[in-house]
Amino acid sequence: MEPVILDETVAQLRSALQRNDLSQASQIVEALRPADQADLFQDLDDLQQKQLLPKLNPADAADIFEELYDEDAAELAVQLPLSTLIRIVNEMEPDEAADLLDDLTPQQAEPILAKIKAANRVKKLIPYEDDTAGGLMTAVAVAIERRMTADQAIEAIRGWHPNDEFTYYLFPTDRLGRLVGTISLRQLIIAPRNKPIAEIMDADVVYVTYDTDQEDCADLMLRYDLLALPVVDENSVLLGIITVDDLVDVIQEEASEDIQRLGGAEPLNRAYLDTNIFSIIQKRIGWLFMLFGTATLTGWVMDLYADQIEAVLALTIFIPMLIGTGGNAGSQTTATIIRAIAVGDVEWADGFWVWWQEFRVGMILGICMGIVAFCLAYLWVGDAKLAITVAVSIMVIVLWSTGAGSLLPLIATRLGIDPTVVSGPVMSTLVDATGLFIYFNIAKVVLAI
Amino acid sequence: MEPVILDETVAQLRSALQRNDLSQASQIVEALRPADQADLFQDLDDLQQKQLLPKLNPADAADIFEELYDEDAAELAVQLPLSTLIRIVNEMEPDEAADLLDDLTPQQAEPILAKIKAANRVKKLIPYEDDTAGGLMTAVAVAIERRMTADQAIEAIRGWHPNDEFTYYLFPTDRLGRLVGTISLRQLIIAPRNKPIAEIMDADVVYVTYDTDQEDCADLMLRYDLLALPVVDENSVLLGIITVDDLVDVIQEEASEDIQRLGGAEPLNRAYLDTNIFSIIQKRIGWLFMLFGTATLTGWVMDLYADQIEAVLALTIFIPMLIGTGGNAGSQTTATIIRAIAVGDVEWADGFWVWWQEFRVGMILGICMGIVAFCLAYLWVGDAKLAITVAVSIMVIVLWSTGAGSLLPLIATRLGIDPTVVSGPVMSTLVDATGLFIYFNIAKVVLAI
Repeated sequence: MEPVILDETVAQLRSALQRNDLSQASQIVEALRPADQADLFQDLDDLQQKQLLPKLNPADAADIFEELYDEDAAELAVQLPLSTLIRIVNEMEPDEAADLLDDLTPQQAEPILAKIKAANRVKKLIPYEDDTAGGLMTAVAVAIERRMTADQAIEAIRGWHPNDEFTYYLFPTDRLGRLVGTISLRQLIIAPRNKPIAEIMDADVVYVTYDTDQEDCADLMLRYDLLALPVVDENSVLLGIITVDDLVDVIQEEASEDIQRLGGAEPLNRAYLDTNIFSIIQKRIGWLFMLFGTATLTGWVMDLYADQIEAVLALTIFIPMLIGTGGNAGSQTTATIIRAIAVGDVEWADGFWVWWQEFRVGMILGICMGIVAFCLAYLWVGDAKLAITVAVSIMVIVLWSTGAGSLLPLIATRLGIDPTVVSGPVMSTLVDATGLFIYFNIAKVVLAI
Repeated sequence: MEPVILDETVAQLRSALQRNDLSQASQIVEALRPADQADLFQDLDDLQQKQLLPKLNPADAADIFEELYDEDAAELAVQLPLSTLIRIVNEMEPDEAADLLDDLTPQQAEPILAKIKAANRVKKLIPYEDDTAGGLMTAVAVAIERRMTADQAIEAIRGWHPNDEFTYYLFPTDRLGRLVGTISLRQLIIAPRNKPIAEIMDADVVYVTYDTDQEDCADLMLRYDLLALPVVDENSVLLGIITVDDLVDVIQEEASEDIQRLGGAEPLNRAYLDTNIFSIIQKRIGWLFMLFGTATLTGWVMDLYADQIEAVLALTIFIPMLIGTGGNAGSQTTATIIRAIAVGDVEWADGFWVWWQEFRVGMILGICMGIVAFCLAYLWVGDAKLAITVAVSIMVIVLWSTGAGSLLPLIATRLGIDPTVVSGPVMSTLVDATGLFIYFNIAKVVLAI
């Protein structure tokens, strides 16, 4: 495997652009694969992008547009001359063209729609929400009817535009356009030439309606290892097909969202370095303030036990360690459970067993940590009672954190809340306040203060 | 979209098993799709699984084995009669069969390998590491040679076993078996019958060698939207093909690992409720103790400033809030940067720009949080100097956390460490200790203690 883009290529492109040699620059870009073209293109500044794009072969420019983040594509599109933009949109796949036009204002989209060739197919795709099956699917170019013979179907395939998205599976319909089955190209090839599709196809087909959430579509495709998922309307009429590359994009997008939310930030949905800092701040500040608010709870608990702290000042030394360990034990549990929910290993009905599993894990972890904490605290402050306080506290806190960490994601899912939202920072902050409460109460009893 | 398995089906299966009516039970299972079969099957206890499996159609049993987690499949396999197991392995795809046999001891695998039909193909796949291209690929059943005509190639496809994994793309070779290009089934279908493959195929083909890491394979397939990725040896001889369903599994597996590591736990790699609690503990305790160790650093910092704490006891009230906010601001940044690295938006060379972006974000967030913290602290303790201490500290801590959070994942990646490992809990613990250090030093200056 060689490096994806050679540094040499980047240097050549930069030098061609500096010499204002746009035809050499476009040759360099056109020699690359689409993903590499988009990568290289994004390294250019706005002015260079605007200069280069009209010089490129429209098919290559269309590939670049398809690889860009939605917002970047829309910003770039409105800066191009209308005629260039129309040539490019003409080469885009209908679902990608619809996404782009949907991100423009109606005034901007109107003149483009009026001129492009696949206007009817693109127009049909615009009304669907981006994150539903309708928004993901690409419109079917040519229908395969179940009464066709294998030979007629192959003839129909010959007529498809080479740019149309194509899948290994085809979805035969009846005369009213209603989905009736699925057939692979392999089945089609090896079938006797005159056999009707209806006799070759598999009538057991997994499908979704246009308003199905994209995550549910991805789950279905993953579960049944589908390379293509047909989308129908209320009357079972075939509207389009979701292809596996769309599925992969959805999985990546959902993983990005989960990971960013676990860190306590709302997902950015575009390239990090291209994101405006105010947009980044906006995605983070809400959470920070909310957690700041709940963190004052922790301060309030400390204030509540000010007498105990004053009596045994050494209690404070162990505060960060105790709440840190509680937070960590809780985060470990939530991360595991969130993932188990996401991949379908665990659901609400398993609640008791999940808690029981974590109770035993928390018990053993708590005892181990407690023993070490006792030794550590005793060596540090040389006070056996204080060491016992710390050891017992850490046991109870770990047990409590693993328990809460196991149930919170399940409860969130049950209530229809994304479980990643309750984990990470929220979990830590919750455990901080309750952990201190546990610690000071154990201190009151053991140290008799 | 209907629910994947109806509760009714589960109830029917349970009642059939209670009546010991294994033939009805196997009928119920066989009517389902493979993923649902595996799901239902996993709900049964060990004894029921062992009873039911030999009664199932071997092809269905093979599907179930392919859907199980590796360890579960191996455990189940050794409990079956050898003849049953051979019938099942015979129906498995060669790459899945090789994975299963690799998880058994050589003594257990030997008699199975001696009897299965595709022994040669399976044997070839065993030596490759699970997480490399060789471990992911499936061996090619029949080669398409470049001198064949389109018609001869279609004839060769007709001869393939219906169970063989099949892809939309085929990979023609020369007479020595070396990869020379790629051709889609569609190109094959629409080509003139007597045209040689060499004239229809696309000679520009993306491939990997057998020892390529699975994550790199997934990146390539994602980047270039590949449905199949050919795997070759040192001499460019085609060994096998990685299919898109393997890719999807890799993406899911990597996302699981990232999410569990972000929570500070090592990935489980099998179904949560089937995982032994000691195995869960083992995945967590190392991290917990390491973080416990670094958390004592925080205690040590507090001990160091015991005089300041004694002088102004109210300082302690704000400790959890300050270190919590620092940890949260840092986690937000690391999560964003880790994801930006994973999807290829950001790399080591962008280090300065990433830091600069986060510096500005941290500055603005810090000022906002500082203003609110000042008001809050002043209202709470009524001491303007203490309120200034808290406000300035939170500003500096947020700036420091976002900065550290932006660079740590990049540095980790540069050093070849998985960036998820440095984030989450590690980040919080690091920021806890340094945050306190910042706080007490600002307190010393502002409060003159």
